[in-house]
Amino acid sequence: MKRKSLEGNTCAVARSLDVIGDWWSLLIIRDALGGIRRFSEFQRNLGLAKNILSTRLKGMVDQGIMTVEAASDGSAYREYVLTEKGKALMPVLAALSQWGREHMFEPGEMGSVLLDVKNRRPLRKIELISEDGRALQPEDVVLSARVIHAAK
Amino acid sequence: MKRKSLEGNTCAVARSLDVIGDWWSLLIIRDALGGIRRFSEFQRNLGLAKNILSTRLKGMVDQGIMTVEAASDGSAYREYVLTEKGKALMPVLAALSQWGREHMFEPGEMGSVLLDVKNRRPLRKIELISEDGRALQPEDVVLSARVIHAAK
Repeated sequence: MKRKSLEGNTCAVARSLDVIGDWWSLLIIRDALGGIRRFSEFQRNLGLAKNILSTRLKGMVDQGIMTVEAASDGSAYREYVLTEKGKALMPVLAALSQWGREHMFEPGEMGSVLLDVKNRRPLRKIELISEDGRALQPEDVVLSARVIHAAK
Repeated sequence: MKRKSLEGNTCAVARSLDVIGDWWSLLIIRDALGGIRRFSEFQRNLGLAKNILSTRLKGMVDQGIMTVEAASDGSAYREYVLTEKGKALMPVLAALSQWGREHMFEPGEMGSVLLDVKNRRPLRKIELISEDGRALQPEDVVLSARVIHAAK
């Protein structure tokens, strides 16, 4: 089934999902953030059919989320590397990881969680913070149309 | 095509995506956080086929993300209301919204952004913060297997 495109949608959530809302794309990005660079490594780690992986990687290259580079060891392999735009998705993955950890696991169950490399401790829980520093609850925020001033 | 289930996956990102990784589910949650409660309102807002909307809503009720309640105005309508587990997805939506705003819009283009209800100002950018308060970059975090201590 062809998805309805949300490319021109004015909601930033919808427009983001149009690009990275695919289930596999986010897991590929997760693996890339973890240091995986080669097609065969993504395939092995995700247990994904070659054609699906190939389509998802191409889509992310087209969207500027990844670039293709020559292998860092001088071999003939090509490597898929996250751009700054791709790396900037880390907070999305971190929020998903924290939510999953709280709501999708039983106490005592083993799970992968995000750790600070330096001290191997979990990160602080992501909070929504107002411009003037107040912690906000879901009820305290609203989606509203605005002119987007700077595209970064 | 039946998706491979990641229900028992040890990665919290994968397990979360298995439940809410569907493109439409996150947009339904976005609308619910914005105050929409009735089937017809979701349908009108999302432009979604009834059978797809119905399946997604049922899935989220089954997962404990939404509950079905009698209409707040005493009419015969049923209303779909986010549980605490569902509301706890706000940081995921906020992270997607902020990423989209920075990377998927041209300067000057209109877009929906998350605002603080109180002062109508955008939220602070979500950051990854270590347990001891340092702002972390994508390179500073790692996914690692751990016993999940509390399911909340």
